[in-house]
Amino acid sequence: MPEPWANYGIDLHLDLAGSRVRATLEAALRDAVRTGRLASGIRLPSSRDLAADLGIARNTVADAYGQLVAEGWFGAKTGSGTWVAERPVAAATSPAAPAAQRPADSRYDLRAGIPAVSAFPRRAWLAAGRAALAAAGDDVLGYPDPRGLPELREALARYLGRARGVHARPENIIVCSGYVHGLALICRMLSDRARSPVLAIEAYGHMLHQRIAAANGMRIASLPVDAAGAVADAAKASAAVLTPAHQYPLGVTLAPARRAAFVRWAARTGGVIIEDDYDGEFRFDRQPVGAMQALAPEHVIYAGTASKSLAPGLRLGWLVVPDAMIDEVIAAKELSGGANGTLEQLTLAAFIESGGYDRQIRQARLTYRRRRDRLIAALRRSAPAVRLTGIAAGLHALAEVPGHQNEADVTDRAARHGVAVDGLRLYTAPGHERGPALVIGYGRPAEHAFTTAVGRLCAALAET
Amino acid sequence: MPEPWANYGIDLHLDLAGSRVRATLEAALRDAVRTGRLASGIRLPSSRDLAADLGIARNTVADAYGQLVAEGWFGAKTGSGTWVAERPVAAATSPAAPAAQRPADSRYDLRAGIPAVSAFPRRAWLAAGRAALAAAGDDVLGYPDPRGLPELREALARYLGRARGVHARPENIIVCSGYVHGLALICRMLSDRARSPVLAIEAYGHMLHQRIAAANGMRIASLPVDAAGAVADAAKASAAVLTPAHQYPLGVTLAPARRAAFVRWAARTGGVIIEDDYDGEFRFDRQPVGAMQALAPEHVIYAGTASKSLAPGLRLGWLVVPDAMIDEVIAAKELSGGANGTLEQLTLAAFIESGGYDRQIRQARLTYRRRRDRLIAALRRSAPAVRLTGIAAGLHALAEVPGHQNEADVTDRAARHGVAVDGLRLYTAPGHERGPALVIGYGRPAEHAFTTAVGRLCAALAET
Repeated sequence: MPEPWANYGIDLHLDLAGSRVRATLEAALRDAVRTGRLASGIRLPSSRDLAADLGIARNTVADAYGQLVAEGWFGAKTGSGTWVAERPVAAATSPAAPAAQRPADSRYDLRAGIPAVSAFPRRAWLAAGRAALAAAGDDVLGYPDPRGLPELREALARYLGRARGVHARPENIIVCSGYVHGLALICRMLSDRARSPVLAIEAYGHMLHQRIAAANGMRIASLPVDAAGAVADAAKASAAVLTPAHQYPLGVTLAPARRAAFVRWAARTGGVIIEDDYDGEFRFDRQPVGAMQALAPEHVIYAGTASKSLAPGLRLGWLVVPDAMIDEVIAAKELSGGANGTLEQLTLAAFIESGGYDRQIRQARLTYRRRRDRLIAALRRSAPAVRLTGIAAGLHALAEVPGHQNEADVTDRAARHGVAVDGLRLYTAPGHERGPALVIGYGRPAEHAFTTAVGRLCAALAET
Repeated sequence: MPEPWANYGIDLHLDLAGSRVRATLEAALRDAVRTGRLASGIRLPSSRDLAADLGIARNTVADAYGQLVAEGWFGAKTGSGTWVAERPVAAATSPAAPAAQRPADSRYDLRAGIPAVSAFPRRAWLAAGRAALAAAGDDVLGYPDPRGLPELREALARYLGRARGVHARPENIIVCSGYVHGLALICRMLSDRARSPVLAIEAYGHMLHQRIAAANGMRIASLPVDAAGAVADAAKASAAVLTPAHQYPLGVTLAPARRAAFVRWAARTGGVIIEDDYDGEFRFDRQPVGAMQALAPEHVIYAGTASKSLAPGLRLGWLVVPDAMIDEVIAAKELSGGANGTLEQLTLAAFIESGGYDRQIRQARLTYRRRRDRLIAALRRSAPAVRLTGIAAGLHALAEVPGHQNEADVTDRAARHGVAVDGLRLYTAPGHERGPALVIGYGRPAEHAFTTAVGRLCAALAET
């Protein structure tokens, strides 16, 4: 029988009035673990006891526990209750990042990596820009702080803490031109530290990322990916790139045990985990899982982007860099010469602070969930042999086609139906080929074109 | 007695009606030389004869000849008339580029490199952005062409041809995040071509540029600079960075013979000339001299920026790259990950096409000319021992202080008067130290603060 929690003198500083009881409770629990007030191994009170103690519904506590188990803060076993996991430990389910893409020739574009740019909030964006410029002094027009505008870094720190559980102070944030720029800067830092360092990177992903890493001094080692996410096999690497929330493009999440293993590896070897949280806000079946960064802020560089939430054309991304590396990454950015315009940084800051960014994400989440549901229903009807895998999240799905089919034949058939779609092979490192599959991006088509696009894809898939 | 020009069958295809007779004549003459219709060595008709032949004023022809002599297309000697110079040959007077700068602590900032951002056309810029976004399709919000938006490259090609005599097709233009980003990309290209290539760079300039070049794989060789500009001593270099129009910060122009020597060096060795045209539009005493690029487009990478004409905060610059190098620079840009947001690119394109950019430059030119005149007058009155050198151009002037003074003492005195100003030493490569001087930037202060700023500087200088 575990001692009641109160005996450990834990004070959650909880103010559980109001509508966000569960989020507040989760945040308080995470904070208690992070700061050591809840030490690893401590057993938590039952959800019933804690609920009674706090005067809230038992389900709220149970949900919060479940979330923190998924994120790897807590361990749980039926019959043994819930305890604080060992640190570095943990695991949850968070997400991955796509890259540059040429324009499609086909009328219906179901390639992955591009969001519903037709839903870009043009009016609200312009209004935010106008308001921000009107309020700004002349200083913002001069040569900017190499980390990015303070206004944007402050807005991002608040947003990332709130929405993704990221531990971010404005001083640790570096604004960059999308994920690819951030990745290039990190690789430059790593290759300044060591000669030809190894970057472990998931064997499935945008091959452009591997080319960028190689061009910036890294040797590439591919990490196998299975149903539990990337295999924690980064022994000789200086750094590992992961898409924990939503593997790109396989769509699985990184399992708790794998997260724990990567964090242990990082703590043991000094390795750097690069968390590519490209679509972390877009989880449909449950509340998004917090970023892996919060588990080990000193080992993880968190990378986020506006490319999926708003538009790739903005070329706005951000890194949250541990204290021990921040100066090196700033130097790498200065010496790369790349930087974002200050007016767009101001605009994004104003857009976030006005609540427009959250609103945009809520709407997009709804849109993508519906599109995903429609895609699933259509495939089930027209091409039942095709199997959609991966979690209900993001802007893309992996569709495994029957093994006797040839991937290139399938994409050719789709093209003849006017649909551009990529085969998995395009996203696969040599030696890691799997069975035939399509990476279907359901974000890009305009709303009016989506039904036709899916219909044509189904027609192509049914035609064997 | 030279044969009359008509005998050579030259056809200038001139349409000299309208108000831009001289510009049209100059362009036609440049074009005739470039295409070989006017071969080197050919003597030109006297200005009187050509004027009579074309039915225009003699002074117009004489002015055009003078301009082309300054640009190095023609040679001239009193008594021997004017002839077509040997190619590669030429020389003219064009300009140089500044870089990142920390915010000033002092109340009055006379450091060089920042334009009058208080005159940034906020209203017109927002209007251009609104109009451009309203007219744009969703495609501009997707992943952009790595060279930059076609709309902007087309607007720049027209502008650069018209205003700076640059030979630019949209296909040869690469949009980048200011000059420093362009320089980094060029250096990456050069260091991919050869192992530790040498970059010859003027011994006076922003030391950040040298650091960026070194960080991108180059070994640095400093070029001495005298009253005729950089000394053409790039024998072992793969490339040479020049500020031909207006050396930064010494303020001299690159003399015709020096231009010729650099172009000969490039033609002989395959060396690349990087023309940093940072303030090429801002010449006060005469019409701006055309870019050096037009003399040898196959050897020169032209680099321009909106940092001086509009605001450094935009982080918008452009390269015009010869055909033989364009693919390599595009690849370097993709692999650097740096890119500009498409909305700001669209905005600049619309701003240029609307005539707003030209208007802004005309107004700024007037502002800077007046400020320079006021600075000269004030120094003459209050500190007659200080000697202002360099041509009447740009946003900065070099002020040589009497040789017995210590540069750091002078800048300290200025700081005590509330004025931030840099000594030349900050812009000097080791081993190239000169007598004490200040690099005075007269662009940055807001209009209402300029008189006070200059007055305080003069007070500091007078106080010896």
